[in-house]
Amino acid sequence: MGKVYLVGAGPGAVDLITVRGAKLLEQADIVFYDALVDPEMLHLCPQAVQVAVGKRCGKLSSAQQFINKRLVDAAQKYQTVVRLKGGDPMLFGRADEEIQTLKAAGIVVKVVPGITAALAGAASIQQSLTLRGVSRSVAFVTLAQGTENLTTGQPIANPSADTLVYYMGRKDAAKIAQRLIEQGQYGGTHQQDTPVQILEAVSTPRERFWSSTLQELADGKADTWFDSSSPALIMVGEALRDPLQSTSAKINNGLQDSHIFANSRRRA
Amino acid sequence: MGKVYLVGAGPGAVDLITVRGAKLLEQADIVFYDALVDPEMLHLCPQAVQVAVGKRCGKLSSAQQFINKRLVDAAQKYQTVVRLKGGDPMLFGRADEEIQTLKAAGIVVKVVPGITAALAGAASIQQSLTLRGVSRSVAFVTLAQGTENLTTGQPIANPSADTLVYYMGRKDAAKIAQRLIEQGQYGGTHQQDTPVQILEAVSTPRERFWSSTLQELADGKADTWFDSSSPALIMVGEALRDPLQSTSAKINNGLQDSHIFANSRRRA
Repeated sequence: MGKVYLVGAGPGAVDLITVRGAKLLEQADIVFYDALVDPEMLHLCPQAVQVAVGKRCGKLSSAQQFINKRLVDAAQKYQTVVRLKGGDPMLFGRADEEIQTLKAAGIVVKVVPGITAALAGAASIQQSLTLRGVSRSVAFVTLAQGTENLTTGQPIANPSADTLVYYMGRKDAAKIAQRLIEQGQYGGTHQQDTPVQILEAVSTPRERFWSSTLQELADGKADTWFDSSSPALIMVGEALRDPLQSTSAKINNGLQDSHIFANSRRRA
Repeated sequence: MGKVYLVGAGPGAVDLITVRGAKLLEQADIVFYDALVDPEMLHLCPQAVQVAVGKRCGKLSSAQQFINKRLVDAAQKYQTVVRLKGGDPMLFGRADEEIQTLKAAGIVVKVVPGITAALAGAASIQQSLTLRGVSRSVAFVTLAQGTENLTTGQPIANPSADTLVYYMGRKDAAKIAQRLIEQGQYGGTHQQDTPVQILEAVSTPRERFWSSTLQELADGKADTWFDSSSPALIMVGEALRDPLQSTSAKINNGLQDSHIFANSRRRA
């Protein structure tokens, strides 16, 4: 029986996979890859059978069950099976279902972490997600699918943190912003002029940024900007304020103009 | 003038740096590295001048200012300067101060993300930080240093999320657990029997795990287990429950025994 490696491909750029992940691709007999994985990354494993498992986050669980079964089948036929997953396997990756299925079949599983999009995005815009004296916590959140705990039946609470990063929150962006502003009025962390950074297709040639405030996001100003074919991150928090803007923002304490630009911003 | 690359070294293991980071080390003229970086990683840059900047998180800012100055000086002398930082530069990494100083000096900066310890830790214990229908948010938190926003003077709020990962929370572990249990009694997310996973020296040969519950952590049962010479992560949340334990835990709805073990747990 072979081993199955769940490998995080990282955010998109081929060279943002880990060295360990790249070596496993070079050794793989068969590679199952996500829709979120850049096809260029498969150049690292020309020797392997390459199987697209065209699931994007939020699709039906039957697709997941089919992937689980194919992984078990592959481990009975090949020595080194790589399951290449966009981002990191343990964060919004549904790795758990694959791990449990493989273990139940007596198959050895190893997990190789990947760079999650939020960290690659912070590197792209060169803004820390935490900032000494300003932000000591960051929450990564998805709004996709159910809002009830399937075990307890309790509603899943909205997170709070100094910095919030929403994965897959695009279509609810204005609503999210409105709710955060309302919470801010009752003692919550975020306010109308709290900085917002939206990042699309992080680390790829299609990477784009939108820099604004919570109020402008609530007003729907980002809605026409989104490119629905790219994954987007919505980042909210005082740590994300451009240091060059912070003085005037503090003086005015008002809304800043939104800034729409592509790829080159704050990148040298 | 040279360029300065802030590179995330990842959690510890030499092959958990990104391919991009490893290539930059191979090209570097000079490398400034943290106390948290494994010396073995410097084998990737035998050609470079190697400078230890022996700061661990939470040290005095004068040390940080000295590092900032040395980076500026190096960029005036060398073409490729690498600042190698444990974990990810943009998460609890104080990269912001280095970036602003370098930019103010007119030096080009690029940031290369790294695997943060929480994701490497989740990979080691093979437990997802988010879980469909159970946990849709994870917060990374540090308790180090001030609890006031230096800009606004407002207290920095305690975060809430389905899964919490505390970086550098070791000495306050029992207090953190006690507070989470109290919050749970007033509608918060976590309860006495909520699973806790503590991970030390993630991804290194000294890696150790402690698996228990919030109540046992509150009772101080982890206190003697900690090895203060290793960085530790405290993870809290229902997503971290061992799937093999979940049925009985639901039936008993009581405390589970703690499990203390090294390196091999749930790793194949």
